[in-house]
Amino acid sequence: MKQPIELFELCGKDRDVRFSPYAWRIKMALMHKRLSFEPVACGFLEKQAFAQSGSNTVPVLHDGDVWMGESWDIACYLEDTYAEAPSLFGGQVGRGAAHFFSIWADMNLLMPIFPIIVADIVTLFGDTDRAYFETTREKRLGMPIADTLKTREKNLESLHHHLRPLRALLKTQKFIAGKAPAHTDYLAFGCFQWARLTSPVNLLEGEDHIYAWRERMLDLFDGFGRAAKPGHQGQAQDSLT
Amino acid sequence: MKQPIELFELCGKDRDVRFSPYAWRIKMALMHKRLSFEPVACGFLEKQAFAQSGSNTVPVLHDGDVWMGESWDIACYLEDTYAEAPSLFGGQVGRGAAHFFSIWADMNLLMPIFPIIVADIVTLFGDTDRAYFETTREKRLGMPIADTLKTREKNLESLHHHLRPLRALLKTQKFIAGKAPAHTDYLAFGCFQWARLTSPVNLLEGEDHIYAWRERMLDLFDGFGRAAKPGHQGQAQDSLT
Repeated sequence: MKQPIELFELCGKDRDVRFSPYAWRIKMALMHKRLSFEPVACGFLEKQAFAQSGSNTVPVLHDGDVWMGESWDIACYLEDTYAEAPSLFGGQVGRGAAHFFSIWADMNLLMPIFPIIVADIVTLFGDTDRAYFETTREKRLGMPIADTLKTREKNLESLHHHLRPLRALLKTQKFIAGKAPAHTDYLAFGCFQWARLTSPVNLLEGEDHIYAWRERMLDLFDGFGRAAKPGHQGQAQDSLT
Repeated sequence: MKQPIELFELCGKDRDVRFSPYAWRIKMALMHKRLSFEPVACGFLEKQAFAQSGSNTVPVLHDGDVWMGESWDIACYLEDTYAEAPSLFGGQVGRGAAHFFSIWADMNLLMPIFPIIVADIVTLFGDTDRAYFETTREKRLGMPIADTLKTREKNLESLHHHLRPLRALLKTQKFIAGKAPAHTDYLAFGCFQWARLTSPVNLLEGEDHIYAWRERMLDLFDGFGRAAKPGHQGQAQDSLT
């Protein structure tokens, strides 16, 4: 009998807290495809668990004989391997545009969100992972993590500038993919879910079309995203506070 | 017998010079759909020609009893009306992502290109259209058109910042839509063709993946885009100079 699909994903010191934006993209894609899977929690340095993949980073998918890293490649693998299941891209033309959207989301959602929430993310790790995270991320930021708190307001403003095309789109249609969600929605949702589970900062306000869309995304698959455990003490950002 | 489709599009004082980015999106979409059409040149103030559309701006499509403005709406109309012809979006999911791309292209291609080429565009009009263009565009720019020349280098730099996600995508695939072009490609191409036909400024250099893509776009439909008449004296930007 075939083993269930495994998804190796990053966790905090509380191993039930799973916040990786890349992993959320894939978890939503697996739900969309109606594939059952087993999430496997991994600390940053527990790479031996998925060594067979050859990948140095999570998420990693393990499906039968296949080991695969890189969330875009995993999405394409799921689409091609489970071609009979509901489509993530709606065909080749849609896959092309979704690939653009993936790159756009990395540059215009993930990157601008990072300095806003990084000071909260760092508190979620145990000592070993925390040291690894601090060293690698402070190098990327070019400053101590604590210093990002000084420019949080400015970083939020910058994020909202980057959000303009997404907001304009969601004013005219319910989902990024149109009337129903597909992979473009999961690509963006991963970024907002990451922030929502790691930080009490509200990135979105209730009157924002993107807020209303995120609510719809949290409702998908019987509230799969909404049920995830936040790492911070505050309520996850799914109600106006 | 059904009349051929008419496309009302902006022209310069030389009525064979047709450079509107929105019109180019539709012309490429019509070619993609293998629909024959008659382009009709319009000055800015010759609105009586398409008064029946209720639209105040070109391009306007006239197809049988249908009059339609707004280039995104026209593309959707063509896709739905000529559903048997090659698809522009590849289905509903692709249409959703293409709509995002359309909004992104307006904000990140069209708007940043405008101040780079506006001082060249203004020279292409006869007196009446020129006065109209100057008044409306200087209001939009918040400065005299001639002043844009002072910041051309800075504006080019800013454009290249906006081009990053498109360049990263075209490093990995031949067209925005994947292996073959579709409407997302025409949305972006319209912006570059507009610049190419109005201004001798080279927006793209030969080693750029976007340059190579634009060459492929100019080759489509037996060189339809390449054959268009430029408004400026220099060679259109399709060879390295």
